[in-house]
Amino acid sequence: MKAFMDENFLLSTECARKLYHEYAETMPVLDYHCHINPQEIAEDRQFKNITQVWLGGDHYKWRQMRSNGVDEYYITGDAPDREKFQKWAETLEKLIGNPLYHWSHLELKRYFGYEGHLREETAEEVWNLCNKKLQEPDMSVRGLILKSNVTLICTTDDPVDSLEWHEKIKMDESFDVQVLPAWRPDKATNVEAAIFPEYVRKLAEVGDMEIQSFADLKRAILKRMAYFDERGCKVSDHGIDYVVCVPTAEEEVEGIFQKGLKGETLTFEEIAKYKTAFLQFLGREYHRLGWVMQLHFGCKRNNNGLMFQKLGADTGYDCINNYAPADQLADFLDSLNRTDELPKTILYSLNPNDNAVIGTVLGCFQDSSAAGKIQQGSAWWFNDHKTGMTEQMTSLANLGMLANFVGMLTDSRSFLSYTRHEYFRRILCELLGGWVENGEYPEDYKVLEDIVRGVSYRNAVKYFGFEV
Amino acid sequence: MKAFMDENFLLSTECARKLYHEYAETMPVLDYHCHINPQEIAEDRQFKNITQVWLGGDHYKWRQMRSNGVDEYYITGDAPDREKFQKWAETLEKLIGNPLYHWSHLELKRYFGYEGHLREETAEEVWNLCNKKLQEPDMSVRGLILKSNVTLICTTDDPVDSLEWHEKIKMDESFDVQVLPAWRPDKATNVEAAIFPEYVRKLAEVGDMEIQSFADLKRAILKRMAYFDERGCKVSDHGIDYVVCVPTAEEEVEGIFQKGLKGETLTFEEIAKYKTAFLQFLGREYHRLGWVMQLHFGCKRNNNGLMFQKLGADTGYDCINNYAPADQLADFLDSLNRTDELPKTILYSLNPNDNAVIGTVLGCFQDSSAAGKIQQGSAWWFNDHKTGMTEQMTSLANLGMLANFVGMLTDSRSFLSYTRHEYFRRILCELLGGWVENGEYPEDYKVLEDIVRGVSYRNAVKYFGFEV
Amino acid sequence: MKAFMDENFLLSTECARKLYHEYAETMPVLDYHCHINPQEIAEDRQFKNITQVWLGGDHYKWRQMRSNGVDEYYITGDAPDREKFQKWAETLEKLIGNPLYHWSHLELKRYFGYEGHLREETAEEVWNLCNKKLQEPDMSVRGLILKSNVTLICTTDDPVDSLEWHEKIKMDESFDVQVLPAWRPDKATNVEAAIFPEYVRKLAEVGDMEIQSFADLKRAILKRMAYFDERGCKVSDHGIDYVVCVPTAEEEVEGIFQKGLKGETLTFEEIAKYKTAFLQFLGREYHRLGWVMQLHFGCKRNNNGLMFQKLGADTGYDCINNYAPADQLADFLDSLNRTDELPKTILYSLNPNDNAVIGTVLGCFQDSSAAGKIQQGSAWWFNDHKTGMTEQMTSLANLGMLANFVGMLTDSRSFLSYTRHEYFRRILCELLGGWVENGEYPEDYKVLEDIVRGVSYRNAVKYFGFEV
Repeated sequence: MKAFMDENFLLSTECARKLYHEYAETMPVLDYHCHINPQEIAEDRQFKNITQVWLGGDHYKWRQMRSNGVDEYYITGDAPDREKFQKWAETLEKLIGNPLYHWSHLELKRYFGYEGHLREETAEEVWNLCNKKLQEPDMSVRGLILKSNVTLICTTDDPVDSLEWHEKIKMDESFDVQVLPAWRPDKATNVEAAIFPEYVRKLAEVGDMEIQSFADLKRAILKRMAYFDERGCKVSDHGIDYVVCVPTAEEEVEGIFQKGLKGETLTFEEIAKYKTAFLQFLGREYHRLGWVMQLHFGCKRNNNGLMFQKLGADTGYDCINNYAPADQLADFLDSLNRTDELPKTILYSLNPNDNAVIGTVLGCFQDSSAAGKIQQGSAWWFNDHKTGMTEQMTSLANLGMLANFVGMLTDSRSFLSYTRHEYFRRILCELLGGWVENGEYPEDYKVLEDIVRGVSYRNAVKYFGFEV
Repeated sequence: MKAFMDENFLLSTECARKLYHEYAETMPVLDYHCHINPQEIAEDRQFKNITQVWLGGDHYKWRQMRSNGVDEYYITGDAPDREKFQKWAETLEKLIGNPLYHWSHLELKRYFGYEGHLREETAEEVWNLCNKKLQEPDMSVRGLILKSNVTLICTTDDPVDSLEWHEKIKMDESFDVQVLPAWRPDKATNVEAAIFPEYVRKLAEVGDMEIQSFADLKRAILKRMAYFDERGCKVSDHGIDYVVCVPTAEEEVEGIFQKGLKGETLTFEEIAKYKTAFLQFLGREYHRLGWVMQLHFGCKRNNNGLMFQKLGADTGYDCINNYAPADQLADFLDSLNRTDELPKTILYSLNPNDNAVIGTVLGCFQDSSAAGKIQQGSAWWFNDHKTGMTEQMTSLANLGMLANFVGMLTDSRSFLSYTRHEYFRRILCELLGGWVENGEYPEDYKVLEDIVRGVSYRNAVKYFGFEV
Repeated sequence: MKAFMDENFLLSTECARKLYHEYAETMPVLDYHCHINPQEIAEDRQFKNITQVWLGGDHYKWRQMRSNGVDEYYITGDAPDREKFQKWAETLEKLIGNPLYHWSHLELKRYFGYEGHLREETAEEVWNLCNKKLQEPDMSVRGLILKSNVTLICTTDDPVDSLEWHEKIKMDESFDVQVLPAWRPDKATNVEAAIFPEYVRKLAEVGDMEIQSFADLKRAILKRMAYFDERGCKVSDHGIDYVVCVPTAEEEVEGIFQKGLKGETLTFEEIAKYKTAFLQFLGREYHRLGWVMQLHFGCKRNNNGLMFQKLGADTGYDCINNYAPADQLADFLDSLNRTDELPKTILYSLNPNDNAVIGTVLGCFQDSSAAGKIQQGSAWWFNDHKTGMTEQMTSLANLGMLANFVGMLTDSRSFLSYTRHEYFRRILCELLGGWVENGEYPEDYKVLEDIVRGVSYRNAVKYFGFEV
């Protein structure tokens, strides 16, 4: 029996251990997509207790507490932090097989030096240990980032954001980790949303111009893209239902935009047409600027209406959707490629059944402008676990070139999540090492080192064009 | 090489063996969903030969005999029982990798003490052994149930059923296993079916009232639910194409009901609207009564028209369907939850691709009214094998809390199928034990025992609220 | 650590090794579906260099070179063969986990006796070795076929083909491998295609008749089927989007045909109706002639419009599609079965998510006219790798009878691809051997030998009715 989560956690073969400890472990972290708040970096927040860090905004944990029948009072309610922590400890001990079990214990080990396992009986011990540790100056937000060997972070930002905190971090010479904005224009994409008219007004204001037409909107967007670009942005991100491709004439799009601006109800087809036109426009601009286009699809959000009214979005009530037609995905990419305006693109679906579709669609649009120009993103959100990552990387290897994969990102709201890169690298090395041990690839450490260091870090540096 | 199906069948690690033999093996069986005939329990049927028990109504076996090119004469035709058994033995020996191979040999071992393997050459020996054994008094239906350590059985019953056999079993003091009815109102749900008008008349008769409107139908249904509730029913069950959510005004439903009552053709949308309304009505009543709602979807039935004419339903001609929109599933549950009327619910899809969707939808509706209030049902029917169960439990663990899973049910028409609980528990322990051996969970037998005993039996007792 | 791809490649247990080396390895190859050019067999082509053999038309390799950022000049462009080979070697060394890595090295080992691994540094050595070897007389097309122990090949042919090369091969007494035509009437099926009117004219010409109506078309098709049948054809093949079933009256089909003949635009529904009618007509004729019907679906082709204009079809720009409704698949088979005119059928989907649907649909139409009358085809194209084959065979075993599987085909355009049968057999034996080693099936080599030899070769001989 292997010891619980020791230094060879998830590494079952000699080759896997060598690949991990000699090549992967020491590589820096490039976190090209996450949801952390740059203000907390700028202000170098220090946390008061482990409940703040762990349970403050982590809807992954909230979901599991609800699954365990814990009352909302102890989750998002007014229960004291110590009591919330207890409920979480009691939940965690039952989470056998769940990635939260591994994430939590990796965080306890790496940041707090706790080698036991958190359960009902050890909650008090862990609470005290962590809270004491959190008082240490190197356990601030910046301390945690530096400890984690992070060289660069991309946050997630709305076109109307001022990016003031990014500016402050950049100006601060005492902290040399790059914190760059990433462009997420979902609110300008969702023409059917109730907030669309208001959002367009805000965008007009920030862009210091009038927006009366779709053409105006695009001009305002271009202004903001230039603003982001000047501040080092190299990557965009979209949260969409599915990749849509229902092209239509510009005049029809204009009409749909006008209806959206007035808050009128739009048909399913109108929405698809608007989004097609807007995403095509953006894709071409990304290509022009050399930005990477990230498309996240396959999610249905805010499914629990009752709790949405109480807690709002991103509180643990989202699920996987299963409508993502492969033909529209391929046709959308083709619509940009036909004029040679397809940007580097990363496709993420929340539905693991889409692995094979994505793996074959991307093969249709690769070219010599970049190694692995079109990428399948790392196993996302509900798939971010040993099974999901193993399946995503196996699928990628079967269908394309795993060696060119840009690898892991945290997608997280927490400053303790960098251990997910460790988790990912262990799984990567286990997979590669297993193939070598099984005689499926030669024991050629020259190439293997390149592959491991590439997927762990270097591919992403090169692909996004960061200077680190 | 491990011996063929010995005491450590499917248990490859020390930890798995400990979990199974020390905690799982001796737990009783709670079979909360099956299709056995309560009359056979009431009358304590004794079988004449192994063909009666095994091949009398088992369409799983029929399918495989047809796959092997066996003539229907030896399957559902008039061939002598000994000849049918021979054809089955010749088929079985080729079923490497199929769950029927394991089920059949578990049944031969546990009920008949046969330790060999059934094949063409051993058919005569097995035929004689089993038939002799079947004459023993403790091999009657009740004997088999008692041997299997079953404490409670839920059958599957139509609202118009009299439940007389359940009554008789209850009255019989010589048999103390609980045999409770379960509510399956499919015929009242399928407004498009040819038999709908006739079924409504029957329901009116049994309910001793007139049914002229949808409101009447609901009143009749309420009467029958009360009748079932008085007789210990705690669980409902629905066989539906997919979970539907197309809400409409009550008046429109009334109009659709009227058309259904006259046997008029309904559109796809009308059918969806009726079913939405009817299932919402039922869901709310289940919540009120504290019943569990089971939703079985993803099946397309009676695909072979030629054989359907000859043999009728449930004869081995069903397949997996692949239309089950995640958005309607989530919206349906939300429509009940908005008014806090969502009952405890178990979701089963016949399509294994739905595992991840279900695993994330259920996380959106968990609350403190029950641990694991919304459940993914155990790998169903065509997925009821090592691969399917391993995948369902791995998915459940990745996305939610396996420890709160209500576990196995036979879903069977046979009194020899309780060994499927053994099969399930071995797979469960292999999975959990593997994680522990691999250092992914601590070797903490206090929690592990709770998890194993919970998933094997105790969770179901608590979840359904049975008194055993 | 196992040596790289040695004699026990992919065989991890003793039983697997025994099954492979004693039963599978020496069985002949029956390649019942491929895309090789019969002219090259007739003329016994000799290749000038390894780039010609390997990179001349292999779009699998082209895709991976593009994924690696190689310029098209070195792929389908005018670069010298030696330089193309270099780019391929540099790509291959990064293809860890990809089937091309195994295919390429199996081909290097078996046909060229090269035991190293091809990479940037060894490219020169391999180039020289292979090119020298290719000059040897037994390395001609026929030499390669004979070396590979092939007894029979089915090519892929259009109804208008003259089959002259098949005739020449048959007449040539110095070569006794059977090379038979297979019937692929896609151009007559695709009523919506721009080339449809022209194709119908060509068919009329070859059939020496007028085609003014759908009835005429069917008569012309029957003529050509008779022509193929006389030349030993026993198998048809269809490349379709999905299995369609939208039946309509013959007169409506006639009208749609007339529109297609004039090149008019057809609706999605009209296309579905025409295809349903035409495929039903063909299915019945296949049944009458005893031909096997192969249905390949789930592919979206020519997705890169830019490259399609430059390179045409089959150049590496296809992807998996995900629209294949299970209900239409089942209904189509039923529509033929109702009148007992369903031919032996092999279903292939490019979407691995369809495994379970196919595995259960086929169980609905098995009968005693053939063992395994309805088959799931071997893991196709993008699924033709260790994961895909393991999953397809596991699914088949779980849901039906793996022992009756007709097994592997190359589906290839290359004469070096017969090693894919070796790859397949190793995976088959690993799977079966693993079950035996794990105690899931008895160590009964009498049955195991039958299963292994059956799936490797004998089942196909019997199923298609070839005389070898």
